Amino acid sequence: MLEPWYITGLVEGEGCFSVSFNLRDSLKVGIETRASFSVSLNKRDLELLKKLHQYFGCGGIRFSKADNTYKYEVRELRSLTERVIPHFEKYPLQGSKARDFEAFKEICTMMKANLHLSPKHMPRIIELAYSMNPSGKRKYSKDFLLQVLGGEKV
Amino acid sequence: MLEPWYITGLVEGEGCFSVSFNLRDSLKVGIETRASFSVSLNKRDLELLKKLHQYFGCGGIRFSKADNTYKYEVRELRSLTERVIPHFEKYPLQGSKARDFEAFKEICTMMKANLHLSPKHMPRIIELAYSMNPSGKRKYSKDFLLQVLGGEKV
Repeated sequence: MLEPWYITGLVEGEGCFSVSFNLRDSLKVGIETRASFSVSLNKRDLELLKKLHQYFGCGGIRFSKADNTYKYEVRELRSLTERVIPHFEKYPLQGSKARDFEAFKEICTMMKANLHLSPKHMPRIIELAYSMNPSGKRKYSKDFLLQVLGGEKV
Repeated sequence: MLEPWYITGLVEGEGCFSVSFNLRDSLKVGIETRASFSVSLNKRDLELLKKLHQYFGCGGIRFSKADNTYKYEVRELRSLTERVIPHFEKYPLQGSKARDFEAFKEICTMMKANLHLSPKHMPRIIELAYSMNPSGKRKYSKDFLLQVLGGEKV
């Protein structure tokens, strides 16, 4: 079994907390919110990802052909709030990723209260999400999503 | 102060154990051997590297303009054998980097016994060094270095 602090150190370097959005006509709010915690490693470290999977007891592992890595990922909200977030509260990140985690945690807490289905609270969720992972690519701009929320024709 | 297991986890992802070679006419063996332990992080994590520096109590930090990162690096053999290697013996790497570390440790032990100055033992050092970091770039090929050792004109 992996040591808890070892996991935090590994995630500091190789982990990713992210929140993405998709347009969904079926939702009143028009936008689906998806939170994800993931760790990507070269394929030679598949065994390590399996141990990570075992430690958290949730999520799954899949291969990414594009960059020859395996990714361990947790997307289910309940697993995030009951397994992943408590780990990083107890064994906190020590570098700049701690800020991503704080935003991620706030979003997941809001999602647990179903606030991601409320046009009133979505701007805060979008704001927090776009403050994370500054180097990441985004499908939609923040302004675009806020327009969708505002009911503007897109 | 950083937790020891956290450091091992961080190094599993972001650390590098490497041994490089340079031609040196002034050495009887013709080749200089340099061992290095380093951790490179984005410039926003300079504070984290400072804590790493503090933990190991040796080496230094410098900025790499090329990739916008700071690198914490230990090159002095005594620091490597007395500070860095004992840490990873007590809090071992859990993934594929453990193999790099074992080769690194064997080379540093040989260097401590001055075997990197002996043409008899250098082939083993070169062999071990080239088994590490398969994706890294090398100035010289392994065969070239073995030719230099053999006294062939280059």
